[in-house]
Amino acid sequence: MAEIRKDPITGRWVIIAVDRSQRPSDFVHNQSVQNDGSCPFCVGAEDKTPPEIVALRPQDTQANKPGWKVRVVPNKFPALKIEGELEKHGVGLYDVMHGVGAHEVIVETPDHSLGMADLEVSNIADILEMYKNRLLDLSKDPRFKYILIFKNHGYEAGATLAHTHSQVIATPVTPINIKSELHGAREYFLMKDRCLFCDIIRQELMFGKDRVAIENELFIVLAPFASRFPFEFCILPKKHAHNYTSISEEEKWALADILKALLTRMKDVLNDPSYNFILHTSPRAEGPARPGYWQTLPYDFHWHIEIIPRLTRTAGFEWGTGFYINPTAPEEAAKYIRQWEIKKKEMNYMA
Amino acid sequence: MAEIRKDPITGRWVIIAVDRSQRPSDFVHNQSVQNDGSCPFCVGAEDKTPPEIVALRPQDTQANKPGWKVRVVPNKFPALKIEGELEKHGVGLYDVMHGVGAHEVIVETPDHSLGMADLEVSNIADILEMYKNRLLDLSKDPRFKYILIFKNHGYEAGATLAHTHSQVIATPVTPINIKSELHGAREYFLMKDRCLFCDIIRQELMFGKDRVAIENELFIVLAPFASRFPFEFCILPKKHAHNYTSISEEEKWALADILKALLTRMKDVLNDPSYNFILHTSPRAEGPARPGYWQTLPYDFHWHIEIIPRLTRTAGFEWGTGFYINPTAPEEAAKYIRQWEIKKKEMNYMA
Repeated sequence: MAEIRKDPITGRWVIIAVDRSQRPSDFVHNQSVQNDGSCPFCVGAEDKTPPEIVALRPQDTQANKPGWKVRVVPNKFPALKIEGELEKHGVGLYDVMHGVGAHEVIVETPDHSLGMADLEVSNIADILEMYKNRLLDLSKDPRFKYILIFKNHGYEAGATLAHTHSQVIATPVTPINIKSELHGAREYFLMKDRCLFCDIIRQELMFGKDRVAIENELFIVLAPFASRFPFEFCILPKKHAHNYTSISEEEKWALADILKALLTRMKDVLNDPSYNFILHTSPRAEGPARPGYWQTLPYDFHWHIEIIPRLTRTAGFEWGTGFYINPTAPEEAAKYIRQWEIKKKEMNYMA
Repeated sequence: MAEIRKDPITGRWVIIAVDRSQRPSDFVHNQSVQNDGSCPFCVGAEDKTPPEIVALRPQDTQANKPGWKVRVVPNKFPALKIEGELEKHGVGLYDVMHGVGAHEVIVETPDHSLGMADLEVSNIADILEMYKNRLLDLSKDPRFKYILIFKNHGYEAGATLAHTHSQVIATPVTPINIKSELHGAREYFLMKDRCLFCDIIRQELMFGKDRVAIENELFIVLAPFASRFPFEFCILPKKHAHNYTSISEEEKWALADILKALLTRMKDVLNDPSYNFILHTSPRAEGPARPGYWQTLPYDFHWHIEIIPRLTRTAGFEWGTGFYINPTAPEEAAKYIRQWEIKKKEMNYMA
């Protein structure tokens, strides 16, 4: 079993594969994702994955057989394993626990050839519903302090299988970047008695809308003021909500719609870039306080989705400092995505 | 001029090129570093760089002419510019300042064909002396709160020019990762009245030396207990010192020696990997307290060098959480570097 170790200087947690360590010769420079016809996520290959946890499928179809629209399975090579106790212990001045957690794969469509940008809005809405299902289900397990839903698209983003999928990792500690966001938002709330993210949305809509890439009635896509990466975007619900699981049916469809628009435009403008997609939600939806767990107040967080195209390389300066150099102003990035809409409309009028 | 912007949620700073923004078409996927005979860092091409700031060269040679051993020049395309005032200001709830700072290049050798691992120990000692020179010189400028010295070797590490060089970036704010290290070390010091890094070194030497890759009388190379990356190493002086500039002549040679050994073994074991090299030192060497600047106490930091081979890709999980998955246990990584020595000795005895 893997170990979860804490860096004594920064407090950062690391999952270390102590049992099946990779040797130097294992780091092969394979510059593409697997795509050789033996895909374990395709229809008909349901027996190549561990048995499904849940699937969106008609009632007259059987589990682990074709017929599904969205399918959730345990990761065959999980970073953390679901069985066992944490057994937190010290090793001299170091802190360690067993690598207990959940690692699931959400196969987004039976069709191997499509990316998320190519899916129907209704298919994306189904995936978004499945995110809610996994968050609600896994948050019942008291061993888990945070549940991360994310997606790696393309080689540069770390994808290893081409068939489009999202991942779910539930961790027994609150990760450092999540803590940093939660702390920042709470400090602002304690100072202002308002949600930081709501204030950001209001400011972005009031002054020139320079960084607004797309918006609809319920959601806004922003190029963040201090974007770390070119064409980094953040999708936020306009109505305040700290936890993703409170998403309404209407919001789910509006989110599917704006996500489809953003991914389609990014694919077009940036020539199908690799990207990471990360859902940021508060640690727990509801329930009584548990000692040692982060307890979100109603206005000290605001869930959102971060989308980062992987167009540049991070180097020593970024690793050494956490201080990023972004060669594309967010105002420019937002303009490219906005202008796409105008151009598309012009084309539609002419047709 | 670039802008330095602060992320209102996490407090992270970002340098944004607002004046010469890169467009989507600028992100060309060029998988190698420039190496076409027009190298601006080669002997005889001194006029292709801005005029030199300082160089190690015989007294009878002229500045910006051949004869130098190590040469420091301003970066021709600096992330931050040396001229101007910071003019800190607010934009609604956002914080901004002008992109003022220093960005220098330390050309490590006149020989285009060598990497740092291939250099003579005396050449490496010269480079280490130049690091001290740049830290002492730039720390006189009160606009700068931190000075980072780092090195990108190879494409995956973000290098754009093949000729081996280090970089210096002086920033008008203390970067978030540096702050996090300083805070962590200070908290430990306040709790224990001892240096955290000294305690780590003592523990690593007392129990089994599993994570000790190389050591000599004055330095130790550790695979950190919570390594984020395979074959990540940390070089620490055994004698406590918070600022690199206090390095003695004897320590400089011992460091050059152990650095040469580590880089040579890494090159051999990992097949000349791309890597980042980052010097972590306290923000200021000495002098009176300045409001708003980090003031290091004698025992609340311990300078060190971090070396990270770029063997794996970071994906959505890492970006989303700051929580890393490391497929190679640090104990394994240290063993490969240690065993190399044994093998080499065996070979030497046989010869």
